Amino acid sequence: MQANERTRPLRVGVAGLGRLGRRHALNLAYRVPGATLAAACSPLDGDLAWAHEAIPEARQYRDYAGLLADATVDAVWLVTPSALHAQQVVAALHAGKHVFCEKPLSLDVAECERVVDEARRFSGQQVTIGFMRRFDPSYHDAFSKLGAGAIGRPFLVRSQTCDLNDPDGFFVRFAPGSGGIFLDCTVHDIDVARWLLGKPRATRVFAAGTVALHEGLREFGDVDNGVAICEFEGGKLAMFYASRTMAHGNDTSSEVIGTAGALAIGHAPRANRVEIYDMHGMRSECTPTFFDRFEEAFLVEAQAFVAAVRAREGGETEDAAAGAGQGATLEDALEATRIGCALRESLRMGQAVTL
Amino acid sequence: MQANERTRPLRVGVAGLGRLGRRHALNLAYRVPGATLAAACSPLDGDLAWAHEAIPEARQYRDYAGLLADATVDAVWLVTPSALHAQQVVAALHAGKHVFCEKPLSLDVAECERVVDEARRFSGQQVTIGFMRRFDPSYHDAFSKLGAGAIGRPFLVRSQTCDLNDPDGFFVRFAPGSGGIFLDCTVHDIDVARWLLGKPRATRVFAAGTVALHEGLREFGDVDNGVAICEFEGGKLAMFYASRTMAHGNDTSSEVIGTAGALAIGHAPRANRVEIYDMHGMRSECTPTFFDRFEEAFLVEAQAFVAAVRAREGGETEDAAAGAGQGATLEDALEATRIGCALRESLRMGQAVTL
Amino acid sequence: MQANERTRPLRVGVAGLGRLGRRHALNLAYRVPGATLAAACSPLDGDLAWAHEAIPEARQYRDYAGLLADATVDAVWLVTPSALHAQQVVAALHAGKHVFCEKPLSLDVAECERVVDEARRFSGQQVTIGFMRRFDPSYHDAFSKLGAGAIGRPFLVRSQTCDLNDPDGFFVRFAPGSGGIFLDCTVHDIDVARWLLGKPRATRVFAAGTVALHEGLREFGDVDNGVAICEFEGGKLAMFYASRTMAHGNDTSSEVIGTAGALAIGHAPRANRVEIYDMHGMRSECTPTFFDRFEEAFLVEAQAFVAAVRAREGGETEDAAAGAGQGATLEDALEATRIGCALRESLRMGQAVTL
Amino acid sequence: MQANERTRPLRVGVAGLGRLGRRHALNLAYRVPGATLAAACSPLDGDLAWAHEAIPEARQYRDYAGLLADATVDAVWLVTPSALHAQQVVAALHAGKHVFCEKPLSLDVAECERVVDEARRFSGQQVTIGFMRRFDPSYHDAFSKLGAGAIGRPFLVRSQTCDLNDPDGFFVRFAPGSGGIFLDCTVHDIDVARWLLGKPRATRVFAAGTVALHEGLREFGDVDNGVAICEFEGGKLAMFYASRTMAHGNDTSSEVIGTAGALAIGHAPRANRVEIYDMHGMRSECTPTFFDRFEEAFLVEAQAFVAAVRAREGGETEDAAAGAGQGATLEDALEATRIGCALRESLRMGQAVTL
Repeated sequence: MQANERTRPLRVGVAGLGRLGRRHALNLAYRVPGATLAAACSPLDGDLAWAHEAIPEARQYRDYAGLLADATVDAVWLVTPSALHAQQVVAALHAGKHVFCEKPLSLDVAECERVVDEARRFSGQQVTIGFMRRFDPSYHDAFSKLGAGAIGRPFLVRSQTCDLNDPDGFFVRFAPGSGGIFLDCTVHDIDVARWLLGKPRATRVFAAGTVALHEGLREFGDVDNGVAICEFEGGKLAMFYASRTMAHGNDTSSEVIGTAGALAIGHAPRANRVEIYDMHGMRSECTPTFFDRFEEAFLVEAQAFVAAVRAREGGETEDAAAGAGQGATLEDALEATRIGCALRESLRMGQAVTL
Repeated sequence: MQANERTRPLRVGVAGLGRLGRRHALNLAYRVPGATLAAACSPLDGDLAWAHEAIPEARQYRDYAGLLADATVDAVWLVTPSALHAQQVVAALHAGKHVFCEKPLSLDVAECERVVDEARRFSGQQVTIGFMRRFDPSYHDAFSKLGAGAIGRPFLVRSQTCDLNDPDGFFVRFAPGSGGIFLDCTVHDIDVARWLLGKPRATRVFAAGTVALHEGLREFGDVDNGVAICEFEGGKLAMFYASRTMAHGNDTSSEVIGTAGALAIGHAPRANRVEIYDMHGMRSECTPTFFDRFEEAFLVEAQAFVAAVRAREGGETEDAAAGAGQGATLEDALEATRIGCALRESLRMGQAVTL
Repeated sequence: MQANERTRPLRVGVAGLGRLGRRHALNLAYRVPGATLAAACSPLDGDLAWAHEAIPEARQYRDYAGLLADATVDAVWLVTPSALHAQQVVAALHAGKHVFCEKPLSLDVAECERVVDEARRFSGQQVTIGFMRRFDPSYHDAFSKLGAGAIGRPFLVRSQTCDLNDPDGFFVRFAPGSGGIFLDCTVHDIDVARWLLGKPRATRVFAAGTVALHEGLREFGDVDNGVAICEFEGGKLAMFYASRTMAHGNDTSSEVIGTAGALAIGHAPRANRVEIYDMHGMRSECTPTFFDRFEEAFLVEAQAFVAAVRAREGGETEDAAAGAGQGATLEDALEATRIGCALRESLRMGQAVTL
Repeated sequence: MQANERTRPLRVGVAGLGRLGRRHALNLAYRVPGATLAAACSPLDGDLAWAHEAIPEARQYRDYAGLLADATVDAVWLVTPSALHAQQVVAALHAGKHVFCEKPLSLDVAECERVVDEARRFSGQQVTIGFMRRFDPSYHDAFSKLGAGAIGRPFLVRSQTCDLNDPDGFFVRFAPGSGGIFLDCTVHDIDVARWLLGKPRATRVFAAGTVALHEGLREFGDVDNGVAICEFEGGKLAMFYASRTMAHGNDTSSEVIGTAGALAIGHAPRANRVEIYDMHGMRSECTPTFFDRFEEAFLVEAQAFVAAVRAREGGETEDAAAGAGQGATLEDALEATRIGCALRESLRMGQAVTL
């Protein structure tokens, strides 16, 4: 908690008030010292009605241009549909705003590259992509231990994003726009692997998958369970697993293996510290969704963004500012998309893809 | 998170700015929607200097009378030395304030009884004693499961409060005023046992203890490791363990056993979701202090207090208001002190004590 | 496994072929190198018919005197009703046999003392009482770690014997002869506590209990859940819990706390290494009975007995011989009974009992 | 334990008395009811000297032909160098013996196929390949639960064989003959995956690897850490991980994921039921080697082999006989080798390999 902030708070405008957008909005409004939620933007009546009740202090905008034109907004927080992210990031930079953008930056590598190029011209502004696992206290602890040499040289990451099955398969409708399981889910694991392994360059990937339950995915060439291997330069490796059909909950975990030990993060997806002993044995209930699992990460992420902006304003170098936030940069987002697209291609071709 | 709070926030004044007081102050200032930290009170220069930096919005008072005289303060939050609690609660009630008071209410049963009697005259004001475990999400989950009949009829609680050893034995200095290990530590477990078992009346206790490391405790008749049994009416039982000499961290856990199952809360005091695999085996680091273990409980506790005041103001019955907060009442605090004193007496006498 | 045994095998005669007796018989017949099952004794037709099929090599006796008269039997293995143990041990010693006797030696302290006195005259013969936990690999590992100073000076043991509930309450019938829950179940924990704490002398005990499910126990002054505290000289302590009403299985565990750490043995009663993830969460099935939990201990116990006899025959001192087996001596059994009886008395009187 | 075996014991001759061979020999000699260790064969003086002491009842042979010529030997137990397995299996069949053969059958697919073809002519004789995990109680429990539909339709297996690092890299010397990490280690996981998934046909594999510590492997095209994906018909999948560089012990685990749940086997490689709490946190020591992890599996495997022979002799169909043993058949061994060779090829080529 940053308590001794005496400067004017960072005034944030949230764009997008869906389920995740509302969570970000509430965090920014009530739980991030040094920030205020100055504005909220959504084209939907329902969203604005919610905002009226839940975040009454925030000015409301129906269109993004209006939000950008609000001179009292220092930073925009994009929780909009993925297809809009890239152009909205660029527009925000042109409007002089700092930007937080939910992942993915874009499902298209070339578009990611354009944003990266464009952003080079706005080096005074903070841009962070929302790979929130980096801010989860456990992931962060593992990252720190790696830095301290706790397990020697890390060379292998195993990481998974497994969601509780939705029997209604509601997500199948969004399959066409999601980019497929590797770009929608595994992109988190790709970022984790790169982050924990020191950002090596990926050289080759292979992916496979299956439809276990949701037949509707077949027409989009998508799967509900995917596995993948990613080779990096320097002999580093990653294995990924993504699933939308878990029976027990959201089971997101990662493991990093080094020459002198290994660290596992989130191996057992226990919901809390309660254990139940009954005729079925001993059990722990599991985190149902990624919201439950990463609630604290979303909050820390917002606090870190504020700290990164402050560091930048305080004249710290870009590196220090990046360090303050430890968030994913546009370059990180580009690489995650590049690898995710290669995985999707590998799944389709049945062959390894060289990057 | 209570987000749709449209009424004027509850204006809280904190009394006491030691380590725990500061934590409460920061929560109330920045993390409890519906509350503002209006004032802070401490006789110590250092505390007020901290407040000037960390909670600049709060008016400062050097004496408690000044705080009570502040008409813009709706509720006082007592994190003062234990010996002052009882009189400060009564004074706050007379001043028309709602009261949150850290445990213990008093180390003296008669004094607790006087406060209970006095408070009966102020039924419109909320008084909550800070047994924070009731607000820990895991304890609360277990409590809910009990209510749903998950383990049949609960009849036995085992509960422990075990602190990381302080090699300097700094706490020995405070032994004379702490009331001894059972009134200082086990009082939490007593409250948990009563809460989880449906508030049965205690009928007999037995306690024993030993000095494992801190010889300085002997002159005060205190121990650094204590064990106890408490019998309740209706054949209910509790076992307690308290220690100040743990090597691995703060290990606070409870277990409730019923006729159709059992629930354990916090059995493994893991600090987070990281597991380390190295030449020493597989391990998890542990929560070092109760601050780390109960950080979220302290926050939820404050949110619940606000909700309880709101419920009361909203004309809900006392029962509903109590339910809103689920916090410990003055009567709960009296009973915890009564049992804790009996344990201390049993330790001294080497015999069971009938209540 | 002791493979290089070139001497004549130790010829063992088992007395008692109930459920546990059969298990011992099969171990001795087929799984203990250096031993042969030479004879088996039971007055029951069914037992002898079982023996005819399962252990055909063993000579059969209907009465214990016949077994003792068999000159080819080197050692007797008593798995007979508890009430017979004491006299049968003495008779075996007089007959020149080594003796293994299942716990308890006797429910009567004076009778235990008579056996101890008598046995002093037969110092060349091995007598081991079957506290099998000492031979469980995990208990043994903890014992070794204690000896190596892993947790400093141990001063507190918490230990429990909790059985899966038998809804038929079949065991209620045996309540009159079992000595009650503390002499039947806790006696194991008493032995564990003494063993792990270095055999200190008990000075005071307190016990309490409740009938959670099996009302039929009340007429015998027994309970189905009992808790107890035992104080030893030198400031050492033990806490015990015994239950016959567990919903999840046999949950036998112990914990020893020292000045520099703690060891837990069997904290989670998992049946094996399988974890199940389904709509109820993550779970492990539990060991249903003590047979399942201690199957290996019963086998190691028998191997250790053979080694102890061999060590004795090899001219090693009594101490070395005892070390070879690490089994409980008659003196250990006497102390366990003495403490167990005091617990029973404390339960009845509602007061602490000084030993 | 099969205790009511009244027929003549199965007389087994062990070939190969290295570390694993000795363990099998001792099991067969002392711990498998219904079997006797009739003979032992090794060309090495040291082995035979060991046998003289440890298994004195076994006749000794220096050459395999002598063992086969021993008419009192019913079954041979091959724990010889892998390069000899195929020819020794065939020779044993021609000599009329039942055969147990340690894995791998052969590193060469064509040779495996020749053995399969040849063995078809000896349908009255039992041949089992030593994939011992099938007999580990936890793996077996998972297999049974799958059969009972506990997790719906299984479609994905993740399985790993990770060995404690040998800092001396002694195994590098054997790299030329081991077939590489996938044929030496992953072959177990391949068999587990096929077994748990219902023996689907593999269609495509991809493998990658790295040398983390043992540079000497590079000249043989081998790695000390390998990862792989295997696709099966029907949309079934497997992911494999093999390592020779673990810091914490032998970490062998598997997981099977189905449409209604998942089962994990051996997720935490705890050595026993002891947990240590000290300044480093909470920890469990790990199984150092596969001997420690699978000690019981090796024993059950031998018992199951005897049962399979008995079932066969008792006129049961081949299927029933196979069921009795549940051991891997020659066909299973062929498939494991086929997939393992494809993984090795994929590692070398950097491309997926279609089977």
